[in-house]
Amino acid sequence: MPIPSVQYSDILAAHERIRSAVNRTPVMVSRTLNARTGAEVFLKCENFQRMGAFKMRGAYNAVSQLTEEERRRGVVTHSSGNHAQALSLAARLLGVKAVVVMPKNSPQVKVSATRDTYGAEVVFCESTVKSRHETTERLIAEHDYTLIHPYDNDRVIAGAGTAALELLQDYSALEIIVAPVGGGGLLSGTSIAARGFNASIQVYGVEPRLVDDASRSFRSGKLESNTRIDTIADGLRTNLSERTLRYIRGNVNDILLVSEREILDAMRFLWERMKLVVEPSGAVSLAAILTGHIPVKGKKIGVIVSGGNIDIEGFFTLLAQKIHD
Amino acid sequence: MPIPSVQYSDILAAHERIRSAVNRTPVMVSRTLNARTGAEVFLKCENFQRMGAFKMRGAYNAVSQLTEEERRRGVVTHSSGNHAQALSLAARLLGVKAVVVMPKNSPQVKVSATRDTYGAEVVFCESTVKSRHETTERLIAEHDYTLIHPYDNDRVIAGAGTAALELLQDYSALEIIVAPVGGGGLLSGTSIAARGFNASIQVYGVEPRLVDDASRSFRSGKLESNTRIDTIADGLRTNLSERTLRYIRGNVNDILLVSEREILDAMRFLWERMKLVVEPSGAVSLAAILTGHIPVKGKKIGVIVSGGNIDIEGFFTLLAQKIHD
Repeated sequence: MPIPSVQYSDILAAHERIRSAVNRTPVMVSRTLNARTGAEVFLKCENFQRMGAFKMRGAYNAVSQLTEEERRRGVVTHSSGNHAQALSLAARLLGVKAVVVMPKNSPQVKVSATRDTYGAEVVFCESTVKSRHETTERLIAEHDYTLIHPYDNDRVIAGAGTAALELLQDYSALEIIVAPVGGGGLLSGTSIAARGFNASIQVYGVEPRLVDDASRSFRSGKLESNTRIDTIADGLRTNLSERTLRYIRGNVNDILLVSEREILDAMRFLWERMKLVVEPSGAVSLAAILTGHIPVKGKKIGVIVSGGNIDIEGFFTLLAQKIHD
Repeated sequence: MPIPSVQYSDILAAHERIRSAVNRTPVMVSRTLNARTGAEVFLKCENFQRMGAFKMRGAYNAVSQLTEEERRRGVVTHSSGNHAQALSLAARLLGVKAVVVMPKNSPQVKVSATRDTYGAEVVFCESTVKSRHETTERLIAEHDYTLIHPYDNDRVIAGAGTAALELLQDYSALEIIVAPVGGGGLLSGTSIAARGFNASIQVYGVEPRLVDDASRSFRSGKLESNTRIDTIADGLRTNLSERTLRYIRGNVNDILLVSEREILDAMRFLWERMKLVVEPSGAVSLAAILTGHIPVKGKKIGVIVSGGNIDIEGFFTLLAQKIHD
């Protein structure tokens, strides 16, 4: 197995690099949650991160390390999710042009957040992997943009690992850390940070059963793919890369699966009992704990709550119908 | 004007009394909010309080000061809102029986929270003020329970003031503090805490325009009533009492009004941008700032976000229809 190239020292360096530009997010606890699990659970709330997700950490770490020449030319990525907004904001803060390739059927709310709120240029493609790649490659060929991949990028991974680093700095006695896994950037960074901080910490990844490629890849040792991607946890529909699979196999204890219903139940617990707006992907780690998939009794567990970007338009439309002004 | 009987020292004493049983809630800030208001805004997040609202502070402060004899007999209140749950939980923690009088048409979710989650006895009455009072009086006559009124009670008011006290302990340079006003217990306690901490702090109350009795009473000096109570801010449908009017006139700079739409917009900002589940009543203070009703530019402002208990059943029912497990 090749030696991983992201080291614990890279995560420490990333943290120094990004700390003035990102939020040191709070860690939330709940008496009800501890009583229900028989454990001490510490939620690292990346829903409170700038632009609403941990993605800001990796994007800022990557853009801030570009050469002057690369900064002058700009950056590009393909994403309709949190990475698009993170890259756009990080680039804007650093005075770098950002271009985001999005399928032309992307929800208007996501296009608007990326373009209008964070000032990136949006280039539309067909909603196929082929078109997405071709469009991105064409933009790079024409403009010499630097690609900042959502997760297949060591600087992005090192940045993502800073969430777990901060959690461990605050609660150094944690015995288990749990993170969601989609493309594997967050789980890679989390596992490298945790093992570097304390080699005896157990690290678990959790993914929706509907998109269980990471679990199967973890077991087989090669990249597996999904036949369906229709999980409600829209941030976790992506596949591992060779790079993230290598990090995860080297550092993670196991990858566990949760059902769609279990994700929704965990999300509801976070909203109703803990008053936290968390997106479905952000509730996946907690789902594995609430359902007992990870044995936590008597333990101190850190949970990465990855983000809080969810469309609440429908809920507020309903509420607006109730007012009598 | 009579000398108010709740003093700053009572709030300090209340804080010592309750601090091991209540949460020291976090204070949240937002770059977006500061940029939008041109101010520094500090949100005291009582939605993260135990049972989801500041009411826990007053209820616990009141129940913990009962005599042994009073504790043995039990406590009673009339409320279908946060005070019912707060009194039930406080009483349970202190080993005291709690009885809550609720209109028989109360939503099942509120009955269940009070009875099943927090273990109080619920006694139903007709949904009139007369029936509520008669039922409560009858229970007191029969069982010698001690009435813990939701706001017309100095111990409840002193407890409510501990939220502002903690906020000022954390951010002593605040120049303005804003709190919602319904029955006036929170605003009374907040204003006494703020003036006691620093007599030059400006204190504002905010209420829905639809139930503007506090604003009119503040101006006229006598208790005014409402003709309508159908504000979405269901925690603020109550009227001031002689006691709370006296405290408020003695300590508050002004009471401002916000529309139902402004409440909803502020609530949406809190959910969407700050990822905080806040109930409509809890968003009322911020509404007065976001709409410019309070001149805050260049100032440091503390905002009491009073609670986060809102029925999200409908939203989750919609989400559940989207899963394909």
